[in-house]
Amino acid sequence: MSMPVLSPLFLILLFSLTFPPTKSTAVQRNHPVRLTFGKDGEFKILQVADMHYANGKDTPCEDVLPQQISSCSDLNTTAFLRRMILAEKPDFIVFTGDNIFGFDTADAAKSLNAAFAPAIASNIPWAAVLGNHDQQSTLSRKGVMKHIIGLKNTLSKVNPSEVKTIDGFGNYNLEVGGVKGSDFENKSVLNLYFLDSGDYSTVPRIVGYSWIKPSQQFWFQLTSAKLKRAYMEKPFPQKTAAPGLTFFHIPLPEFSNFDASNYTGVRQEEISSPPVNSGFFTAMVEAGDVKAVFTGHDHLNDFCGLFTGINLCYGGGFGYHAYGKAGWSRRARVVVANLERTAKGNWGSVKSIRTWKRLDDKHLTRIDSQVLWNKSSLGGDL
Amino acid sequence: MSMPVLSPLFLILLFSLTFPPTKSTAVQRNHPVRLTFGKDGEFKILQVADMHYANGKDTPCEDVLPQQISSCSDLNTTAFLRRMILAEKPDFIVFTGDNIFGFDTADAAKSLNAAFAPAIASNIPWAAVLGNHDQQSTLSRKGVMKHIIGLKNTLSKVNPSEVKTIDGFGNYNLEVGGVKGSDFENKSVLNLYFLDSGDYSTVPRIVGYSWIKPSQQFWFQLTSAKLKRAYMEKPFPQKTAAPGLTFFHIPLPEFSNFDASNYTGVRQEEISSPPVNSGFFTAMVEAGDVKAVFTGHDHLNDFCGLFTGINLCYGGGFGYHAYGKAGWSRRARVVVANLERTAKGNWGSVKSIRTWKRLDDKHLTRIDSQVLWNKSSLGGDL
Repeated sequence: MSMPVLSPLFLILLFSLTFPPTKSTAVQRNHPVRLTFGKDGEFKILQVADMHYANGKDTPCEDVLPQQISSCSDLNTTAFLRRMILAEKPDFIVFTGDNIFGFDTADAAKSLNAAFAPAIASNIPWAAVLGNHDQQSTLSRKGVMKHIIGLKNTLSKVNPSEVKTIDGFGNYNLEVGGVKGSDFENKSVLNLYFLDSGDYSTVPRIVGYSWIKPSQQFWFQLTSAKLKRAYMEKPFPQKTAAPGLTFFHIPLPEFSNFDASNYTGVRQEEISSPPVNSGFFTAMVEAGDVKAVFTGHDHLNDFCGLFTGINLCYGGGFGYHAYGKAGWSRRARVVVANLERTAKGNWGSVKSIRTWKRLDDKHLTRIDSQVLWNKSSLGGDL
Repeated sequence: MSMPVLSPLFLILLFSLTFPPTKSTAVQRNHPVRLTFGKDGEFKILQVADMHYANGKDTPCEDVLPQQISSCSDLNTTAFLRRMILAEKPDFIVFTGDNIFGFDTADAAKSLNAAFAPAIASNIPWAAVLGNHDQQSTLSRKGVMKHIIGLKNTLSKVNPSEVKTIDGFGNYNLEVGGVKGSDFENKSVLNLYFLDSGDYSTVPRIVGYSWIKPSQQFWFQLTSAKLKRAYMEKPFPQKTAAPGLTFFHIPLPEFSNFDASNYTGVRQEEISSPPVNSGFFTAMVEAGDVKAVFTGHDHLNDFCGLFTGINLCYGGGFGYHAYGKAGWSRRARVVVANLERTAKGNWGSVKSIRTWKRLDDKHLTRIDSQVLWNKSSLGGDL
């Protein structure tokens, strides 16, 4: 395809497109699904963070109450996932890494299959990124992502086909189309970005978790600019970019920029971000479309806080073979985008993005419901 | 040209080359010079920061002593540059931005010509990057860089030819070859990187100076990896990358990581870095070859401090039509790399990198001499 001409607004960003548009998400190996908003004008995402799955029924739980220990295993993680899917009926499920806990996993492929089984069985499209533990078994990071993309109903990709060079495995984006029959039928009204936040630093002078690299940030910015251009072009040109949501595993250093007064949820442990700031937060602010970031990694933190126009959210620990806090329920996050009605009464673009969490208790108690963004307030903040 | 195969060491960095090697610096429009170490095994760079040149003899000086005011103008900046060139006889001159002070400049081209005139007249090769004031007259940032590359003896480039998309103007690299007749004759033993650190943020939520973007960092990392590979390849394969030096205008946030105990020089004013961390320091640490960074921008800071293996150095204010401190001399930085002798008695690779400053006083007093790096200590730090 020929290289598209940039509108002046995009030239301001000083980014031009160096690659042809990505193929539609409609073309997927196992699940020919294009994500779209439902007839109810809603798109609901279930975020599952840190399943830490190992070998199934023989894998014990960590940090549960004494009376829970004997009957608790990875199967509790599976059961929780099944219940969440039944209760929320999401349109899409995102697994934000540490899907398996490699150190205790005898066979990575088998463990991945079991971990994702409830999602696969639900026939709901799903996607996954890597944490820092997924590769600690029989498959490398590349091997884990390659295995994942072969599973049923997933929209995951190993890496974007449009760039030759990128760090990590599991960098890709997905578009969520407007309601069929509406003006937005063929536009992506909600953009989902997935990145590999790596595992551990391989740089001798920097000790700790890895970080999102310039190659990934450059791809993200080019992709964001391309999506923005498409959204602002005919037919039905829009004035600003469609909102975006970003998913990866390790929290950014900016997750530390909150005190108790300005977040919703709990902060019960250290923010285990990389020891260096690699600038991805700045890259997102500059791109301008991302309204919220969803990570995992710190099982005892489950907050959302707003900083410089972007909500920084944890999923909260989900898996039972993962450190946690006895008596403090495992949990999952739900993210819902709702469309506005146009003057003609049809479904339009995204009006608001909300979130809440559900606890793995008897009633799957819903907590911490909050609005992350709404269109009318031009960013929902400041 | 075909894409080179990466050695395993480079695959660790997860970067592969997406562009053919750059043309030799031997092919330059006005000055067919390839930078090389001299027969004395030395390569000396003069850094000139913040000339702030305007219209010449009618442009007054700022912050000089009362008795200096009447006779002081841009010509004092010119005279200082001439004296520095005569005194140090550098092999290369680098201008690290705010070469002209655009707001007070009637004709940008004329002002640039006058500002660089002593360098041009010296027949010494030189290069320049942009500051935040260079474009505030009759030429845009692109226009200023395009004008600069047309001047005699410069090795400046508007942008690297090997990438299609990069932020800013004045991102390029230069190689410094070993001594003619030595094993390193056809290797770059010292790598010089030049980046455009921008002017002011155009992102509504971020107010302040601009920053080095992912596109520039990605180019830098690919270039660093390419140079490292060439250096470690036959003939005369080396065990590590050649040392690198980076030049741009606005100091990084990491320049704030020093207290009086761990830098050489003075810190007399706030570090005017961008309000966000865009990760370029991390990108340099990851690349592994850069031993020192040279910026300008803060005229009253002239220190060098070592952080995570990289020296962060200011040039110190040079120009007279720039804020300064009356009675505190304008100054310039000198950077000298020296080669080691091989077992056979020939000149080898870079052994050490030293720096000092000279004051614009009667004797061009030399101060703050220090070693930035030496090979034997594997980085000269920690």
